[in-house]
Amino acid sequence: MAKQFDVIVIGAGPGGYIAAIRAAQLGLAVACVDAWTSPAGKPAPGGTCTNVGCIPSKALLQSSEHYEQLNHHFAEHGITAKGVSLDLAKLIGRKDTVVRQNNEGILFLFKKNKVSFFHGTGSLAAKTDFGWSVKVSGKTDEDLEGRHVIVATGSSARALPGVPFDEELILSNDGALRIPAVPKKLGIVGAGVIGLEMGSVWRRLGAEVTILEALPEFLGAVDRDVAKEAQKALTKQGLDIQTGVRIGEVKTSAKGVSVQYTDAAGAEQKLSVNHLIVSIGRVPNTAGLGADVVGLKLDERGFVVVDEDCRSNLANVWAVGDVVRGPMLAHKAEEEGVAVAERIAGQHGHVNFDTIPWVIYTSPEVAWVGKTEQALKAEGRDYKAGSFPFMANGRARALGDTTGFVKILADAKTDEVLGVHIVGPMASELIAEAVTIMEFRGAAEDIARICHAHPTLSEAVKEAALAVDKRTLNL
Amino acid sequence: MAKQFDVIVIGAGPGGYIAAIRAAQLGLAVACVDAWTSPAGKPAPGGTCTNVGCIPSKALLQSSEHYEQLNHHFAEHGITAKGVSLDLAKLIGRKDTVVRQNNEGILFLFKKNKVSFFHGTGSLAAKTDFGWSVKVSGKTDEDLEGRHVIVATGSSARALPGVPFDEELILSNDGALRIPAVPKKLGIVGAGVIGLEMGSVWRRLGAEVTILEALPEFLGAVDRDVAKEAQKALTKQGLDIQTGVRIGEVKTSAKGVSVQYTDAAGAEQKLSVNHLIVSIGRVPNTAGLGADVVGLKLDERGFVVVDEDCRSNLANVWAVGDVVRGPMLAHKAEEEGVAVAERIAGQHGHVNFDTIPWVIYTSPEVAWVGKTEQALKAEGRDYKAGSFPFMANGRARALGDTTGFVKILADAKTDEVLGVHIVGPMASELIAEAVTIMEFRGAAEDIARICHAHPTLSEAVKEAALAVDKRTLNL
Repeated sequence: MAKQFDVIVIGAGPGGYIAAIRAAQLGLAVACVDAWTSPAGKPAPGGTCTNVGCIPSKALLQSSEHYEQLNHHFAEHGITAKGVSLDLAKLIGRKDTVVRQNNEGILFLFKKNKVSFFHGTGSLAAKTDFGWSVKVSGKTDEDLEGRHVIVATGSSARALPGVPFDEELILSNDGALRIPAVPKKLGIVGAGVIGLEMGSVWRRLGAEVTILEALPEFLGAVDRDVAKEAQKALTKQGLDIQTGVRIGEVKTSAKGVSVQYTDAAGAEQKLSVNHLIVSIGRVPNTAGLGADVVGLKLDERGFVVVDEDCRSNLANVWAVGDVVRGPMLAHKAEEEGVAVAERIAGQHGHVNFDTIPWVIYTSPEVAWVGKTEQALKAEGRDYKAGSFPFMANGRARALGDTTGFVKILADAKTDEVLGVHIVGPMASELIAEAVTIMEFRGAAEDIARICHAHPTLSEAVKEAALAVDKRTLNL
Repeated sequence: MAKQFDVIVIGAGPGGYIAAIRAAQLGLAVACVDAWTSPAGKPAPGGTCTNVGCIPSKALLQSSEHYEQLNHHFAEHGITAKGVSLDLAKLIGRKDTVVRQNNEGILFLFKKNKVSFFHGTGSLAAKTDFGWSVKVSGKTDEDLEGRHVIVATGSSARALPGVPFDEELILSNDGALRIPAVPKKLGIVGAGVIGLEMGSVWRRLGAEVTILEALPEFLGAVDRDVAKEAQKALTKQGLDIQTGVRIGEVKTSAKGVSVQYTDAAGAEQKLSVNHLIVSIGRVPNTAGLGADVVGLKLDERGFVVVDEDCRSNLANVWAVGDVVRGPMLAHKAEEEGVAVAERIAGQHGHVNFDTIPWVIYTSPEVAWVGKTEQALKAEGRDYKAGSFPFMANGRARALGDTTGFVKILADAKTDEVLGVHIVGPMASELIAEAVTIMEFRGAAEDIARICHAHPTLSEAVKEAALAVDKRTLNL
């Protein structure tokens, strides 16, 4: 007989494992099914984020930033070294350890919260009297039944047409995290979050990096001022970022990869590289889910169709995270996971899609929440803008990292904060204050009147709020 | 005839220069008088904070942290170097450059805001029909008259009785920032913010550091859990911190400094060091201010007596910052400076003394706002507490810096956040979110329900808020 649960979660990425834990906390009997396997053949819950996304990329970014600082900036501090050497296997091994700690952490959390974990691929099999039948195909197959099912199967890298990932020459986010030797030349198609972060890692470690982006504008969804500042800084570091290109034939050979493309001026170009990272977007993982078997509605791009509350077209089948509409962000998936678990338990979970922060972990970091200036203009909304550069921030000067600024957009009449855009040191952490203000629908003047510790980078947030009212104190 | 101003600010530290700029922004004619002089003989506005406090200490902390990372932690990342060498003069020279940039920045701000700057010592001379006469004694003396005077003369290091600072062997915060060679042995009396920060700098650069603290408890004003964690971490790094000691005779000689003291167990001890930093508190700078001449009321410890709004006993004489009651923090001084300027201009400036954050920039950093657990217990207040360790935070693991935790205290009934205490990476920046929540009198559940970017250290703040309700997701 099938094992029965109140909730079966398919997928143990940030959306899935968090939904499972929250549902278990609320007293429900919960199963979580996930197929991810570690190089050692063990269960590796955590999804793309933990295994080949957020976490390993941040580990590599930190290690490579140390190397960059040592090679290019320590001398300013009077610190010099001879014979600097890089053990790439060790650097990548450290990343693997961090990933494994996170995998093991999630397995521990499942045990602690009494979530039954099944290692295998979960698929919807049938409607039953109890609820839904879910099959697990793994080393051992399992038949599960759940009153509710939460689909949290995530997304995968989109390949260029006709250029499949081999993870040796043509790399997705996965292979990009484990190139066995620092390439002399690295090509990247797609100047989004993954392209820029991975480009930064390998550039710092010594690769000559070229990034080809199809869109005419760099970071088109980002506030224009921030995108310009980021582009300037990344270009100065040595990333060759070309926008408005059209990718042509991609050929692989023993020597590497050659990419034919048309540049923004219309000229034919050819790029020869050792490896090519393709980071042109991600597709939802709904193949093999059994959507057709049970009649789960997908949209034309393969996403599970859900309403604002993550309900699918089927009763008691929910979906969260990358596999549904909205930004493909781990923390968005988590919030949806918590909200769905609470709804199943009869509570009133809620996700505020207007206050989900975005982060790009380059150096400078880029982080934002709310509307961009171009979006406000397009809406015809009356707004005020204020900016403050880290160059005028005492702590940034003490750190020796003064690139970038904080920019705040507020309603012209009410002063309500509509968007906060940061490019600069620790933007990823500074954005938390901005999200908090926006959740309380606070005004720029609120930020301006809140005491900020001195000397901190967060004082730049305060000064940007003062700038909205044209009364900066330190500019 | 005396030059007349609406406002004369005596002192150009964070309280004074900010008050001067804000007053000028509000349309008042403003003078600012400051005697600080750079090594090159030029005006050096910015007070203790800029010249010998917050800013230079953060510059040295950053440089020394780089050195520490290279010597002790880069190998974990696969980065090794031979022949690491430290050019201390260059390291300190960089700090001096950062200070100079800040000095020049303030002079630029004065010009931009049309604040008249006078380089010299300002003192209250007499009541006049216009307001108050202020004398400036400097290279050129000046007679000024102001309708309002803001005293912002700051504070100075307190010496041990009979042991004056010579800044060669017996060092205040000033000399501690410019020891010409890394000492073999460094002694510090007083384990407060300055003692711990300077102790960390010189320990990282190679000194054997002993810190003697008179109080029985380490960081007595700090939440006990945080203080314990900080003490453990700093001790592990090699700082020898001894509490409950009684300092006896201090002798200086050509060889250095010897300190006799009684340890916590009552045994007589002797410490021989190359230099001794004395950081046992600070005294207000009111000598030479002319308080007696005009009848400005000081308290028995020399502080200018003011009410909550920074009004002294004399009409239109105000005082802000270290020279008045309250914490000796640059940002507290700034807030008071802004509020006084606004009051003079007929506005309603306000400082919320309950939401002033504190920071200690050791590694791990320590930051807090609001009540400690021991204070709530002493008040008999019903509270809930929640903590979350950085060990369970993905970004901390990726950074390789997992010491410490976030602890949140909330009212047992209303869930209002009463205190946030952080020991760990970037605590100084994470505290901004906590201050914001407390300014809005938000609840722990508010923090818990706000979307925090993944992977960030700020997620530990969210998890600590979840812990208040016993529902952490990642612990």
